Amino acid sequence: MHPVQPADHASLPHLPEWKAYSEAVLEASFCTDDLHLVHAAGLTIDLSAQVDSPAARQAAENLLNARGFDSARKALLAGEHVNRTEDRAAWHTMLRAPEPIEAVANEHRRVREFVLDADAQGKWKSIIHIGIGGSDWGVRLATDACGGYGSRRILKFVANIDGHAIEDAILGMDPRETLVVATSKSFTTTETLANLRRAIQWLADSGIENPYEQVVAITAKPAAAAQLGIPDSQIFKFWDWVGGRYSLWSAVGLPVALAVGLDVVEGIRAGAAAMDAHFAQADIADNAPVQLALAGVANRSVLGYGSLSIAAYDARLQYLAPYLQQLDMESLGKSVDLAGQPVGVPTGPSVWGMPGTDGQHTFFQWLHQGTDGAAVDFIMCREADHQWVEEHAMLLANCLAQRQTLLRGTSFEADRAALLAQGMPEDNAQWLASHRHHRGGRPSTLIVLPRLTPHAMGALLALYEHKVFVQALIWGINPFDQWGVEAGKKMASGILQELHGEAQTASHDQSTRHWISLLAGDRQGR
Amino acid sequence: MHPVQPADHASLPHLPEWKAYSEAVLEASFCTDDLHLVHAAGLTIDLSAQVDSPAARQAAENLLNARGFDSARKALLAGEHVNRTEDRAAWHTMLRAPEPIEAVANEHRRVREFVLDADAQGKWKSIIHIGIGGSDWGVRLATDACGGYGSRRILKFVANIDGHAIEDAILGMDPRETLVVATSKSFTTTETLANLRRAIQWLADSGIENPYEQVVAITAKPAAAAQLGIPDSQIFKFWDWVGGRYSLWSAVGLPVALAVGLDVVEGIRAGAAAMDAHFAQADIADNAPVQLALAGVANRSVLGYGSLSIAAYDARLQYLAPYLQQLDMESLGKSVDLAGQPVGVPTGPSVWGMPGTDGQHTFFQWLHQGTDGAAVDFIMCREADHQWVEEHAMLLANCLAQRQTLLRGTSFEADRAALLAQGMPEDNAQWLASHRHHRGGRPSTLIVLPRLTPHAMGALLALYEHKVFVQALIWGINPFDQWGVEAGKKMASGILQELHGEAQTASHDQSTRHWISLLAGDRQGR
Repeated sequence: MHPVQPADHASLPHLPEWKAYSEAVLEASFCTDDLHLVHAAGLTIDLSAQVDSPAARQAAENLLNARGFDSARKALLAGEHVNRTEDRAAWHTMLRAPEPIEAVANEHRRVREFVLDADAQGKWKSIIHIGIGGSDWGVRLATDACGGYGSRRILKFVANIDGHAIEDAILGMDPRETLVVATSKSFTTTETLANLRRAIQWLADSGIENPYEQVVAITAKPAAAAQLGIPDSQIFKFWDWVGGRYSLWSAVGLPVALAVGLDVVEGIRAGAAAMDAHFAQADIADNAPVQLALAGVANRSVLGYGSLSIAAYDARLQYLAPYLQQLDMESLGKSVDLAGQPVGVPTGPSVWGMPGTDGQHTFFQWLHQGTDGAAVDFIMCREADHQWVEEHAMLLANCLAQRQTLLRGTSFEADRAALLAQGMPEDNAQWLASHRHHRGGRPSTLIVLPRLTPHAMGALLALYEHKVFVQALIWGINPFDQWGVEAGKKMASGILQELHGEAQTASHDQSTRHWISLLAGDRQGR
Repeated sequence: MHPVQPADHASLPHLPEWKAYSEAVLEASFCTDDLHLVHAAGLTIDLSAQVDSPAARQAAENLLNARGFDSARKALLAGEHVNRTEDRAAWHTMLRAPEPIEAVANEHRRVREFVLDADAQGKWKSIIHIGIGGSDWGVRLATDACGGYGSRRILKFVANIDGHAIEDAILGMDPRETLVVATSKSFTTTETLANLRRAIQWLADSGIENPYEQVVAITAKPAAAAQLGIPDSQIFKFWDWVGGRYSLWSAVGLPVALAVGLDVVEGIRAGAAAMDAHFAQADIADNAPVQLALAGVANRSVLGYGSLSIAAYDARLQYLAPYLQQLDMESLGKSVDLAGQPVGVPTGPSVWGMPGTDGQHTFFQWLHQGTDGAAVDFIMCREADHQWVEEHAMLLANCLAQRQTLLRGTSFEADRAALLAQGMPEDNAQWLASHRHHRGGRPSTLIVLPRLTPHAMGALLALYEHKVFVQALIWGINPFDQWGVEAGKKMASGILQELHGEAQTASHDQSTRHWISLLAGDRQGR
């Protein structure tokens, strides 16, 4: 069976509902001063600082209906083949369903038993986790966000093929007490296999008799892991219908459970399931992922913002920005629609950020006074998990202040008057006030978690997953493939052959030829 | 004295040289297949994958001359008041000059003696470094990039005001053996002072009799640090004319020296000085920072790329992206020119990235197939500092492959033919090939370091500093101020008062009022 083009996919710019929606957004007001809150799975999503009007809300509903939102949502949640170009499901919601199918329940059980057994026997002081992209960011994020300060086991990460990365990870580790966990959907990921080979070599060189007994594989291709020599009991499975960037909910949670506890893994799954239930049931107007998606489409495709900046006011969420960067940019970085035609409007923005208040001292200057600006998602936790009340108040005050300043800006007149009052000559005051001016009028969303519990974390991630799905539906693109990473991989393997002195397999530009020749020379000179 | 508006600043869009340059860029070819290399301070900058033509080169020279490049460069390096809106110099080059002025030489000497003394006496097992933004990223980057695997002392960082950050830093540290280093230009930075208070409290609570004897301050306001109780001998000075994001070259290097050695600090300074000498002397056509700047202006203001993505193919450069994010976005995130008027063309792009190959598994999909694309700076080191030759070859092959694929894309026809050969019906093959297609035509620069030595690192950072300076000159903006971070700070302090139950000092939108009231209630409920 080949993937087949859907029969009747309409190009977005030709849809009358798109025209009506984009016109309504352009006419809508930006500072309505209404409170626009949506509640979902314990989170509050505040959309008050996004463009809004009754006409835009109605046009958004018409647009979603024209795109078949209701049946698309059902198809996603029922495990139908919504990934059209790869002809398979994208059924990550099943991984966190309260009553999953037997295959999923069984792997959850196996992970649980493995972890309980390791805990009971006091096995493994440390874990080296090897995986990249979708097999890396979720584990890092969950461990860092929900680990508290006393983790059960040291967890080190190796993602990059760079030898400095693996060398750094094994430094100071006790090989007799270290479990190596390799996560790769295909079990052919170049980086992961190379790093796994090095880790196994390190175990063997340290005198471990059977290094494979200290290796766990998490993969959708268990046969490939078994062939390498990893015992069946240490191979944990997920499935073809789980995208790498949606895999945290599967057995990929195993290293998280070993490092910071099974309750974290089970908590984030429960939170995500609560968001799934909300997404499945809530009306468009009260549906948090849908409303977040609409804000994103308005900002990107109508108002022209090229970036979405993620400002989580919590130091424990340092990996949220790269996690969402992958989820959003790999899913929505497409420009061809389901009919195989150019989408015709700008799709996914660049996504970047860092925890506030770090970001305030890094790029908020640009957000306030740069030519473009960006849409910003502010995230904060009402309650902290430390006892320093004043610091937490300062943190949240900063979050609210930045958001209001982006929205409302500053008064040029007040600034000018203040400079005049300091005795500055009029011309000069005008000039300096123009440099100080924050013009405002820039959109943002505020997402409030009651506390950074695993449940809230899971709900937050599922919120973004479904947001991405709804945006892809509106744009008419497939969020579940990633053809754009294939050509570079293939080219890299050809160039590697050439560095080994083998014949050229692809044509190169002059500069690439230059560097291949220099680097091949470096290798021969060794 | 007040800062004074420069007498005769021309608006960029009105300059005939700008019109000529932008037309030349639009007419220039993108894939000339010429090799365009510039050599500077041991680095090679490969601009072959940027737009280029003899006419564009000539127009660029005319534009730079019209902007007074030569005298502007001289003024910068001579310590004139190039920071017009704050009426002061931006003389970071003096900090790394081979023969600096006496004040600078004296502080370098004091830092050196402090570190040698600590080393000789075996003092301090660990350092807690407290600083944010410009007082944080440089220290992190230099330590991580040039530290090797065996650092002399444990170095932990606290930047964010979030109590979780400071709690995490002091966890497991021995207070008797810990030096606290607080870095803040103004010594009024809210985050830094709050975190410093907590650190001092922790020392005091641990029974340290005089905690201030374990505190070092690095600041342009030594009196403020002395007033807090820090001994004069432990206060290291820099100056008003050193911007926070240009401060790594000053006494801010002290924690780097304690953690990974004085030779690292001295090496990066020497590398930066070598780049300064190149920048001062090289002709426009051979001047690396100038050529990098021109590529950036062409990509941003003529070709419309909104992002610059930093892809350093070296795991040790994980902090390079946030470092450059601050340097570039805080410097160039301005939209008002030196005459106080709107610039009229898009200025600084958003800057983001992560080490390759991590980025390949995170957002390269978007770079290849997204609607916008981004200009990319690829960075690689010819030689690694580990012994795994094959891994290094793979790493560099990936770098070259991604770059060529962005430039040249893939052949739609070849992909379609391959699918037909697999037996796919014609319509379907056409459709699927359109999803697989990489269109190419996307610009990038490749910067090659011989090895990641401190010297190369310093040269790389100075390259970007001067690039930023040249771009600001062309756009006609001041890269050295950051008025855009002031309004939010002021608003935050007002909101904090309100959270304490004090009267409102500024008006708020409805949503901000809502959250202030809820959070103030949370505090009273405690």
